[in-house]
Amino acid sequence: MTVITALWWIAPVASVFALLFAVLFYRKMMAANEGSETMIEIAGHVREGAMAYLFRQYKVVIIVFVVLLIIFQILALAGIQNPFVPIAFLTGGFFSGLCGYIGMKTATAASSRTAQGCSEGLNHGLQVAFRSGAVMGLVVVGFGLLDICLWYLILDKLVYTDVNMTNGLSIIGMELVQEGCTVSEKLVHITTTMITFGMGASTQALFARVGGGIYTKAADVGADLVGKVEAGIPEDDPRNPATIADNVGDNVGDVAGMGADLYESYCGSILATAALGAAVGAHNIMNGSGTETEAIKLVTAPMIVAGIGTLLSIMGMFMVKCKEGATQKNLLNALLTGTLGSSIAIVIALIAMKMFGIIPGWGLVGSVIAGLAAGVIIGQATEYYTSDEYKPTQGIADQAVMGPATTIIDGLATGMYSAGIPVITIVIAIICAFGFAGGFSNMSMGLYGIGFAAVGMLATLGITLATDAYGPIADNAGGNAEMAGLDPEVRERTDALDSLGNTTAATGKGFAIGSAALTAMALLAAYIEEVKLWIAKLAEDGEFMVGTVNFTKEMAEHAGIMDFVNAYELHIMNPLLLCGLFVGGMMAFVFCAMTMKAVGRAAGAMVEEVRRQFKEIPGIMEGTGKPDYASCVAISTKGAQKEMLVPSLLAIIIPVVTGLILGVPGVMGLLAGGLVCGFVLATMLNNAGGAWDNAKKFVEKGAHGGKGSEAHKAAVVGDTVGDPCKDTSGPSLNILIKLMTMVSVVFTPVVVKFSPIIQELLHITTK
Amino acid sequence: MTVITALWWIAPVASVFALLFAVLFYRKMMAANEGSETMIEIAGHVREGAMAYLFRQYKVVIIVFVVLLIIFQILALAGIQNPFVPIAFLTGGFFSGLCGYIGMKTATAASSRTAQGCSEGLNHGLQVAFRSGAVMGLVVVGFGLLDICLWYLILDKLVYTDVNMTNGLSIIGMELVQEGCTVSEKLVHITTTMITFGMGASTQALFARVGGGIYTKAADVGADLVGKVEAGIPEDDPRNPATIADNVGDNVGDVAGMGADLYESYCGSILATAALGAAVGAHNIMNGSGTETEAIKLVTAPMIVAGIGTLLSIMGMFMVKCKEGATQKNLLNALLTGTLGSSIAIVIALIAMKMFGIIPGWGLVGSVIAGLAAGVIIGQATEYYTSDEYKPTQGIADQAVMGPATTIIDGLATGMYSAGIPVITIVIAIICAFGFAGGFSNMSMGLYGIGFAAVGMLATLGITLATDAYGPIADNAGGNAEMAGLDPEVRERTDALDSLGNTTAATGKGFAIGSAALTAMALLAAYIEEVKLWIAKLAEDGEFMVGTVNFTKEMAEHAGIMDFVNAYELHIMNPLLLCGLFVGGMMAFVFCAMTMKAVGRAAGAMVEEVRRQFKEIPGIMEGTGKPDYASCVAISTKGAQKEMLVPSLLAIIIPVVTGLILGVPGVMGLLAGGLVCGFVLATMLNNAGGAWDNAKKFVEKGAHGGKGSEAHKAAVVGDTVGDPCKDTSGPSLNILIKLMTMVSVVFTPVVVKFSPIIQELLHITTK
Repeated sequence: MTVITALWWIAPVASVFALLFAVLFYRKMMAANEGSETMIEIAGHVREGAMAYLFRQYKVVIIVFVVLLIIFQILALAGIQNPFVPIAFLTGGFFSGLCGYIGMKTATAASSRTAQGCSEGLNHGLQVAFRSGAVMGLVVVGFGLLDICLWYLILDKLVYTDVNMTNGLSIIGMELVQEGCTVSEKLVHITTTMITFGMGASTQALFARVGGGIYTKAADVGADLVGKVEAGIPEDDPRNPATIADNVGDNVGDVAGMGADLYESYCGSILATAALGAAVGAHNIMNGSGTETEAIKLVTAPMIVAGIGTLLSIMGMFMVKCKEGATQKNLLNALLTGTLGSSIAIVIALIAMKMFGIIPGWGLVGSVIAGLAAGVIIGQATEYYTSDEYKPTQGIADQAVMGPATTIIDGLATGMYSAGIPVITIVIAIICAFGFAGGFSNMSMGLYGIGFAAVGMLATLGITLATDAYGPIADNAGGNAEMAGLDPEVRERTDALDSLGNTTAATGKGFAIGSAALTAMALLAAYIEEVKLWIAKLAEDGEFMVGTVNFTKEMAEHAGIMDFVNAYELHIMNPLLLCGLFVGGMMAFVFCAMTMKAVGRAAGAMVEEVRRQFKEIPGIMEGTGKPDYASCVAISTKGAQKEMLVPSLLAIIIPVVTGLILGVPGVMGLLAGGLVCGFVLATMLNNAGGAWDNAKKFVEKGAHGGKGSEAHKAAVVGDTVGDPCKDTSGPSLNILIKLMTMVSVVFTPVVVKFSPIIQELLHITTK
Repeated sequence: MTVITALWWIAPVASVFALLFAVLFYRKMMAANEGSETMIEIAGHVREGAMAYLFRQYKVVIIVFVVLLIIFQILALAGIQNPFVPIAFLTGGFFSGLCGYIGMKTATAASSRTAQGCSEGLNHGLQVAFRSGAVMGLVVVGFGLLDICLWYLILDKLVYTDVNMTNGLSIIGMELVQEGCTVSEKLVHITTTMITFGMGASTQALFARVGGGIYTKAADVGADLVGKVEAGIPEDDPRNPATIADNVGDNVGDVAGMGADLYESYCGSILATAALGAAVGAHNIMNGSGTETEAIKLVTAPMIVAGIGTLLSIMGMFMVKCKEGATQKNLLNALLTGTLGSSIAIVIALIAMKMFGIIPGWGLVGSVIAGLAAGVIIGQATEYYTSDEYKPTQGIADQAVMGPATTIIDGLATGMYSAGIPVITIVIAIICAFGFAGGFSNMSMGLYGIGFAAVGMLATLGITLATDAYGPIADNAGGNAEMAGLDPEVRERTDALDSLGNTTAATGKGFAIGSAALTAMALLAAYIEEVKLWIAKLAEDGEFMVGTVNFTKEMAEHAGIMDFVNAYELHIMNPLLLCGLFVGGMMAFVFCAMTMKAVGRAAGAMVEEVRRQFKEIPGIMEGTGKPDYASCVAISTKGAQKEMLVPSLLAIIIPVVTGLILGVPGVMGLLAGGLVCGFVLATMLNNAGGAWDNAKKFVEKGAHGGKGSEAHKAAVVGDTVGDPCKDTSGPSLNILIKLMTMVSVVFTPVVVKFSPIIQELLHITTK
């Protein structure tokens, strides 16, 4: 037991290491040559715009957080919320926001330096861009893991210290641990408390994704429609007033949005798995089949794996380098060594951990391998459906010859098709991860295996995020080079870096999507554990009726996951659950609709502004008049603020309302329906968008008449339709799924306590 | 009991009445003036093309049916299939095909007569078109109900006659009824046998919808892209070689396809509800809370309601008339009197039936009212989202000013939004129908209530289908008038009839979608009853292991629905069920992708053929050279044949494969996932397509520059994208959902018997 406790320290130490190396990489990047004065000036505009946006977004987020905080505090004082939830919620959001800020600061500082680096050589550019991406990757895993470890430490060493205590422990008038608490009960309390901080990270992530997505696409669509299509000037042309906003958008959407997204996935998978581990441990002890040591192993293993993965990521980052004059292929290999190599390394590390007894059972190693294999396959499938080297995307380009309508139809169909392989893959991965962990004889252990697979997949997030995040930096560097009028060769190099990023991003996306689905499943199970805990608490003064079963405190504490499944009738023939399933499916579509419409409205405002400037500012097209970049930045900022609020609030309100009316079965249906529909729809939107984008690039490379042909015009329409799909609605869905689960977890006591009363009033309760 | 038996005869008598009135309306329509020689010639071309298509389609369907028949016969001989299934499957398919044939014959004969009627006056045209629609409506309900009644009669009077028999009964070496069978057990046997005939209707419906949908859209898109966009000639211009194919397509898709679709919904709802009724009755008797009379009531009530609804429909048809010189509004009121009036009449009839003791319990009347209300609300919501009188469609037209990309984005978003109200409505309807029937104290009764609500909604299908089916006839009449060069005033009148049809069609669609969802839910429950029956049979020689429970024959026979839910772990945390949910969600999307791609390919072939003819046939544009209509008809026919096979077979194979690997939990997940995703996706596609279509018409009426403007071009792109959405993929999804359920029902014994063996091999079974 002491060995395990000692080994746990790997996690916090690794997180501090990650942050230290982030500082190191940041300093190295800042030391690079910033380029000419024009480049510095342009980068300054982008930085200012990005920071202005970030601060305005954070203002809105802070208001939402304050409102939620007040609600949580009131609930906590009323005894129907854990007193740690308000502060846990805050830290989750705060660290996520901090990651966004640091990532943005790094990215905006890196663009001119990368452009300058590229003018010195391809490897120079790569180093600057990759190091900046590494800052983002390390900051996300560093703060994420640190936050988790700090909470664990505080709760374990300072709050829930008194095991086997006789008087219990209370904070702010609320009893935390009941008399006679055992080690495993203590772990259950700690982990179910910790999981609620995921909601803070989720909420902030949704705002970042939705707001950032609306911002970037409003600017992009606006800039393209007037600049490229109407005025016929190239991308990133300094005469286009929306250019700066477009470049700001890349940072806002791809850097800050993606960082917050993965921060949340990373923390969510670790927290959910730890919570399941505590439940499994407690249950095994009760059955007499487990020990306290095993229970501690189950809880700490996800953190230790994450810690080791972080160290491996840092190692991998130093392996990403190439000789001067390296070819595109060398660069690709360098990056792949970093990403795929670290996945292999994590498997080896897991085998070693099993041999040293840190992980309970070989099965869990198998679960992680299943998850990793699924990630690679989904990534390859994404690559197949969206790269212009394969038939699907080329097929869209072929259809472009017949005009925009057939381009759109074929793209939609390709997107829908592309959901096939990922779903089959994730289904097999779920069954394998569940089965390897022993789920068919012990369901809770199988669900733990599913969560553990997600943790394994995300363990090396540090490096995968680095290769992912450097893409938008290279993109921005290209914009900087174009606007500063650098040599076309420089632009070619930044484009090479950018397209390289797109290739590695496919793998990263596979991991992100696959792990999100597995995490969501683990969260579903963790939700039931949370329900169990609150039933035990609410039954303290007597009994609490769940469906047709009257639980006493003791019964609830000793109940397994199946007891609640049966008591709540969480089966597929329960109409409340089926109705929840419908609502969940609908939520995915309606949420998408909202974000798409938002982009449309914000882009419309941008189009008008750009048209106005082209008309009213004299000499703008000749390059003598200076366009008003700031007003375009302001329009995107304002549009994103205004539009992100309603869909985000909906994602918070719907699970609570569903829970109050349809009860726990309705919530389970909602979450499952949202997960399934959201997963398939997100895959479709992401891949259709990617395929349209690359079909356009394929035509621009010369197919079907190349640039300026009718086919090209049709392909541009496809690309424009795909933009909000792949950069706003699709990615936001990923977070929606998890946020709805997190909200359900946090609002468990409210739903458990009040839904019976409301259902009684509505006569929709089983008698 | 004898009263109920006597009252049951309402159903077969009503079905014969329906068929007699169909003959009457057909004769009346045929007696109408057929118009000029050119009109007769054009109608002849369309009729020939339609019949040629139908025969070729039926050839393919017959081959598929023969293959399935052989499989069923082998299974029956091996004792793992009901010996009635092969023949039941055949009759279901045969009557559905017959309805398609008659509907098509009527519609193609009616087009020139409607055009001629319109040249005499609006009411004349309406009468001819509506009577033809009435033929379709009456044939569908007539044959559907007759088929059900005949089966019930044969099984009740000739096969399962020997109640309380001592030796059981066997056919072709297979024991049908066990010794000591009671009346309620007999009813269970009869109804679970009958439900399998739904698969025949479903299979034929899917082929009709997919094949017809591909045909009509290939012709439509092909004709539009080359004719309207490239050559700039108007719709239905006789110089366009694809015009005849386009008109054939309207019949093939909207008449034959829709008829088969609703035939299947109609039969499915009655069969599923009867099967649930038998199960509820048997269970109540066992509990001591029910009588044999009540059991018979529960089984016969859906048929009696359908019979009364049919009689009310015939009555309603005679109410649809208007004075000469009636305004558009008068016409609309005439139709609404027919459709909404019959819904009110059915409620009154139900109240009377309750008072005379034919329906057990007031709650069921409430269930039907809930269903009807849902149908009206969904219809109104459809109208709101797709009519150019409201903001959503006008918003799409507004976006058209900015080009095709924004038109598409806005249309997609509108479609996604539009899923909101129908889902909320159906959720409330499900809970109400379930709750009113007493589901919260007796789950089986609640599920029966859901099925009963669907039966009530579809009871007056005769007249709703009549108002629905007359739309394409008016459309075709317009084509006939245009090609025959009739007075523009005639075209105006046919257009008026057509647009009138679109308005009433919204209500019809609401009923179709809502009842399909309710029917699918009832089928889910009926599936479990089928599983129960087969477990009892398979446990005959000892015991049969279901999950962790070892069922003896007697245990299985006396088990309630919940016993199987628990034994099979049909709960939401079962990973096999969750995986099935994923596969079901994916199926909806992949199936859509396939049908969309099929339209794209077939349309591409059509485009090339039309282009070739424009180039190679001299004088075609001047009207001196005659286009080769037949070759275009052949291309659409061939394309549809080739493309409909794979998606249709997939819908049959996937449930069986899923069942064999993931077992009964996987099947339940598949069906629930398919239902939810399919419902939402179908609503989205249907409404987006409808909104794009009407946005284009809105621009054509003069908004944003009217015909020929840039906005119009963008709106045409939207319309073309929407075509396969609303006429191929969307409607096919409705059938996919039900076909997958029907396949699961029919293949129950195969899955129940073999999946444990396969799961054992794959180690995915609970120990």
